[in-house]
Amino acid sequence: MSNRVRAVVAGATGYSGRDLIKYLLNHPQMELVGAFASRSGEITPLTTIHPQLTGLTKLNCQPFDEAAIAKLDAQVIFLGTPNEFSHEVTPALLESGATVVDLSGAFRLKDAALYTKYYGFEHTRPDLLAKAVYGLTEFVRAELPGAKLIANPGCYPTTVIVPMKPLLDAGMIDRSQTIISDSKSGVTGAGKSPTATTHFVEVSESFKSYNVFKHRHTPEIAQALGIENSPTALIFTPHLLPINRGILSTIYARLNTGVTRADVLNVWQKTFEASPFVRVFAESQLPEIKFVANTPYCDIGCAVDDATGQLIVVSAEDNLLKGAASQALQNANLAFGFDEGAGLR
Amino acid sequence: MSNRVRAVVAGATGYSGRDLIKYLLNHPQMELVGAFASRSGEITPLTTIHPQLTGLTKLNCQPFDEAAIAKLDAQVIFLGTPNEFSHEVTPALLESGATVVDLSGAFRLKDAALYTKYYGFEHTRPDLLAKAVYGLTEFVRAELPGAKLIANPGCYPTTVIVPMKPLLDAGMIDRSQTIISDSKSGVTGAGKSPTATTHFVEVSESFKSYNVFKHRHTPEIAQALGIENSPTALIFTPHLLPINRGILSTIYARLNTGVTRADVLNVWQKTFEASPFVRVFAESQLPEIKFVANTPYCDIGCAVDDATGQLIVVSAEDNLLKGAASQALQNANLAFGFDEGAGLR
Amino acid sequence: MSNRVRAVVAGATGYSGRDLIKYLLNHPQMELVGAFASRSGEITPLTTIHPQLTGLTKLNCQPFDEAAIAKLDAQVIFLGTPNEFSHEVTPALLESGATVVDLSGAFRLKDAALYTKYYGFEHTRPDLLAKAVYGLTEFVRAELPGAKLIANPGCYPTTVIVPMKPLLDAGMIDRSQTIISDSKSGVTGAGKSPTATTHFVEVSESFKSYNVFKHRHTPEIAQALGIENSPTALIFTPHLLPINRGILSTIYARLNTGVTRADVLNVWQKTFEASPFVRVFAESQLPEIKFVANTPYCDIGCAVDDATGQLIVVSAEDNLLKGAASQALQNANLAFGFDEGAGLR
Amino acid sequence: MSNRVRAVVAGATGYSGRDLIKYLLNHPQMELVGAFASRSGEITPLTTIHPQLTGLTKLNCQPFDEAAIAKLDAQVIFLGTPNEFSHEVTPALLESGATVVDLSGAFRLKDAALYTKYYGFEHTRPDLLAKAVYGLTEFVRAELPGAKLIANPGCYPTTVIVPMKPLLDAGMIDRSQTIISDSKSGVTGAGKSPTATTHFVEVSESFKSYNVFKHRHTPEIAQALGIENSPTALIFTPHLLPINRGILSTIYARLNTGVTRADVLNVWQKTFEASPFVRVFAESQLPEIKFVANTPYCDIGCAVDDATGQLIVVSAEDNLLKGAASQALQNANLAFGFDEGAGLR
Repeated sequence: MSNRVRAVVAGATGYSGRDLIKYLLNHPQMELVGAFASRSGEITPLTTIHPQLTGLTKLNCQPFDEAAIAKLDAQVIFLGTPNEFSHEVTPALLESGATVVDLSGAFRLKDAALYTKYYGFEHTRPDLLAKAVYGLTEFVRAELPGAKLIANPGCYPTTVIVPMKPLLDAGMIDRSQTIISDSKSGVTGAGKSPTATTHFVEVSESFKSYNVFKHRHTPEIAQALGIENSPTALIFTPHLLPINRGILSTIYARLNTGVTRADVLNVWQKTFEASPFVRVFAESQLPEIKFVANTPYCDIGCAVDDATGQLIVVSAEDNLLKGAASQALQNANLAFGFDEGAGLR
Repeated sequence: MSNRVRAVVAGATGYSGRDLIKYLLNHPQMELVGAFASRSGEITPLTTIHPQLTGLTKLNCQPFDEAAIAKLDAQVIFLGTPNEFSHEVTPALLESGATVVDLSGAFRLKDAALYTKYYGFEHTRPDLLAKAVYGLTEFVRAELPGAKLIANPGCYPTTVIVPMKPLLDAGMIDRSQTIISDSKSGVTGAGKSPTATTHFVEVSESFKSYNVFKHRHTPEIAQALGIENSPTALIFTPHLLPINRGILSTIYARLNTGVTRADVLNVWQKTFEASPFVRVFAESQLPEIKFVANTPYCDIGCAVDDATGQLIVVSAEDNLLKGAASQALQNANLAFGFDEGAGLR
Repeated sequence: MSNRVRAVVAGATGYSGRDLIKYLLNHPQMELVGAFASRSGEITPLTTIHPQLTGLTKLNCQPFDEAAIAKLDAQVIFLGTPNEFSHEVTPALLESGATVVDLSGAFRLKDAALYTKYYGFEHTRPDLLAKAVYGLTEFVRAELPGAKLIANPGCYPTTVIVPMKPLLDAGMIDRSQTIISDSKSGVTGAGKSPTATTHFVEVSESFKSYNVFKHRHTPEIAQALGIENSPTALIFTPHLLPINRGILSTIYARLNTGVTRADVLNVWQKTFEASPFVRVFAESQLPEIKFVANTPYCDIGCAVDDATGQLIVVSAEDNLLKGAASQALQNANLAFGFDEGAGLR
Repeated sequence: MSNRVRAVVAGATGYSGRDLIKYLLNHPQMELVGAFASRSGEITPLTTIHPQLTGLTKLNCQPFDEAAIAKLDAQVIFLGTPNEFSHEVTPALLESGATVVDLSGAFRLKDAALYTKYYGFEHTRPDLLAKAVYGLTEFVRAELPGAKLIANPGCYPTTVIVPMKPLLDAGMIDRSQTIISDSKSGVTGAGKSPTATTHFVEVSESFKSYNVFKHRHTPEIAQALGIENSPTALIFTPHLLPINRGILSTIYARLNTGVTRADVLNVWQKTFEASPFVRVFAESQLPEIKFVANTPYCDIGCAVDDATGQLIVVSAEDNLLKGAASQALQNANLAFGFDEGAGLR
């Protein structure tokens, strides 16, 4: 076991952290050597925090401490920590020589000024923004081997970028029309902290939009699709579903004249033919959240109105997996030269 | 009691029928004199079918039978029956002199040809289509007194027409842009019959779109908004929420140059100032399903991106109430000259 | 309107407070004149706290303040406040001459020593414990007219006492056997504060027991049933259901020899024949939560194994209504000489 | 791959069948060679029936046909079929030489007469009842190697037998007192057929008991615990939870004088120290459904009231896994000499 890659998870108390830990405990080529929470708090068995892990690990979760992490000689550090926290600790962690896979938004945007506007803090390391690989795995496989800082994509953006980027790149989308992503997420996307928004009674038997016109995933999607320069190019509206896990996005765009549903499916199938975790729904069945919950897949499908060229894409993923933990592992696997799916079956 | 309006509910076994019955049992000016199911089946106490009604009524639910209804001398007949069934039985019921409030889609569309395309049956009474009042109460109060055939609006259409018709009528909406309603409904909207679609395990912890580009409520919405002649004017996409009751629609449109959020709110407030069951959300809070579940309201609110004139409307209702039973009663109340809200508080 | 009873709700931000307010806004003989929260906080419109009330009231919710309440000249004060808070403020409120209906547990137990053990504070007013009417309405109708301090029963206890007290009083239950109530409640029972226990993701798709052998409703049930002196007489085990509203209790007891299911039903029907809010399920159908959610009823039913005399009672109520707000109104109605059901239909 | 054990799943359209297939597709020593539904129906890709399996298998699901199964030369046949169907087809399948793991109740009870009473059909093969191994894995490891007919335990019984059998065997339980299991199951336990009972709207936001005093799992539990001869020894009450997966049982029993919680935990820990899929909760945390959903574990914990010797056991499992599919694989693994957990991590 000693020659397995030594992995640390910070932010181990959250849902993404927990799911990363589950994967790492079964990973053939990685070994979980440490789990960390926020700076304060006590040493606590992981199984006390996540009783789901009972019988699977004896590791403790420790208060976050750079020195303690350094002693573990970790080769890869997964950060499931808040944005500002990741922004603060990443530089020192990188200096230790470890690969950092950051699941927060701290290194996703190339334009540092957007952090002030969308994240509410000033980004002090534009150099790292420039270096970070935006880890939507399927589009950056060539950049991942040896990568030192991987900005793991946001949960919502993954569901929009996976289907739309290939179509935009292929010139199939009418860029004069606004692309609208009406997206819906389960409550794990809101994190583990108890708030009025995550109270069972406020969520169950209800449904709502939130952060309309203001969500920080909007510039992330626009950047990845290369449409960040037009204010009318993209609308992204998140909604809260009364479920635990899963995102479904309904995406509206206009196809260029002559482009058919078969063309769309064809581009997708070619783009993703070597992608084990993107499934193209080529028949009439469209993706649904129940097909992807608790799996590492992003499912994509579409309907087209031939008379008008209107395209409706439906995509779905588990927000904690392809939207967080499993994509982080796809990225880490490729960074270390392993099979992309190692530990993910 | 004898001078109260005698009311019959057909389709009493369904969810809308049940909620109509609940209202009628407390209505100060109407009296429930009969409850009917489909043609076959046995006489069964309503409380056996709907144990919720225990202690509230001793009425039986009978197999549907025109002669039995005629004997009851009903003045108003509510049809919570399937489309084709309503289409079949309404003419004879009208001949009895009763007012028919049909909650199905059988008399909503003015163009008979659309029934063949969207409902799968040939409509044989275009004369009744012409006479029927499309009962989106807030817009037809002048036509309701004395009306004999009221086509109660569909659940989804109500959530789109209430907010959008005043804005289109006021010339505020850019008609060159497609109006998109991304709508989400609870499972009662799918009816009480057990199917693969309504199985708990298929719905819970999931979410899906359905009938993309094909739902029969599309032409109904377009007709009410007066945009039925343009194929690119409207997209309506229904989705299934893992909740019992409630619809939320997220509606995308472009405002004409210079129109502001304040203008939108102003039009709404004027249009609905005498409407007890439409609530305009004028602050930052947008409608959510939990605010309207088990109530007769349609809530409407909006956000506007000033830079682009993009409008996002969020509307919500209880699909069984403002989307069915309570709107049926608003209509019946006005048809008989009662207060619009009688029996609905 | 001026001769309606002037009512105040303290604890107006919680779920029980909200539902009390809804009732009071439609009450023909009471008028809501004030709404109060905890001592700190700002004056806030009730519709901001509970958007469900939009259009129904213009009242503000104020920080709790005895002087402000006194100015309102309230005749009845409903306390939906925490136990210790009710314990603290009730004496002064009573001195104002108002009737206090306390929905907390502060005045339910006759034995002051139990507060130290089960509630974690020392009760300083045994005199008020002695005077307080324990308001399980159906059993204390004679004591309510003119009552000044009404201790509204706990949500769980109501579901156990309603069916079991008449059977114990009738001598039908084998007192040598332990009565076990395995009870299950929706999440509103845990209150509106966001905690790890009420987080959607911790509740949804799960189920758990809690406070096993330790819940403070155990002595309350035992006291009401007159079995508080035997340590083996009662086991009460609460569980958390992934639903918003409703309690179902499955209660196990042994019938004395010769007592049949018909005898049980007969006692219940006699006991509750003039009780509009207890429904006896006398056929094979047993109570279910969906029959009582959003209603003021307590439903009771049973099965008996004739060979062994084993009785299984199933009872259900809405924990916020018969378990809190509607029972509080039953009690207040009778205290003021109104019809028990006023404002509750 | 050719020397892996050839496995067939009949009843592949159901939930247990689907989960068995998922396991088998990742099993290192077994190979899924065929999937069958009921006798009628068409050949359909498994991915059409279970879109969750998209990308994982190209196998078709065929109508059940003994000849087709015989051609596949299967060494193990898993039956996720209805009770009477399993009863009918098992004899011929056994003659083919294959090992049959039957997930139905058709071969669980030793007393054939109980089938008439509890299952509604006459059992014609008491010889097979005698031979069948009742596969509660943890208690029959010695009997499984080479077993030809394994009756996989019921979902509910597993949650009762796992914790209670060791305590009864150790003489710790007061046999003069009734053991009560108040058990609650998610909806997958009711199967995939759409019925009034499994309709989302009938289940969501509700909770109910069912089959009180009559459930067929009662004699199965009693037999496994060796208490089938006393009519007062056991009460088992099933309830329906509004969740997809998981069972939690709250079990009431009286300990013999002097037996403590530590003794109970000690017996459990010794009994299950080599059992990878039973987890003993030895601290104050009791099992909850969310800890076991989507896992192959049965979790057990308890509370004891020292004053009275009252024991409350709380056990939990995923009804489709330890209650069906994963236990079937534990059994099949041991029957073929594999590691008990092969394919289950």
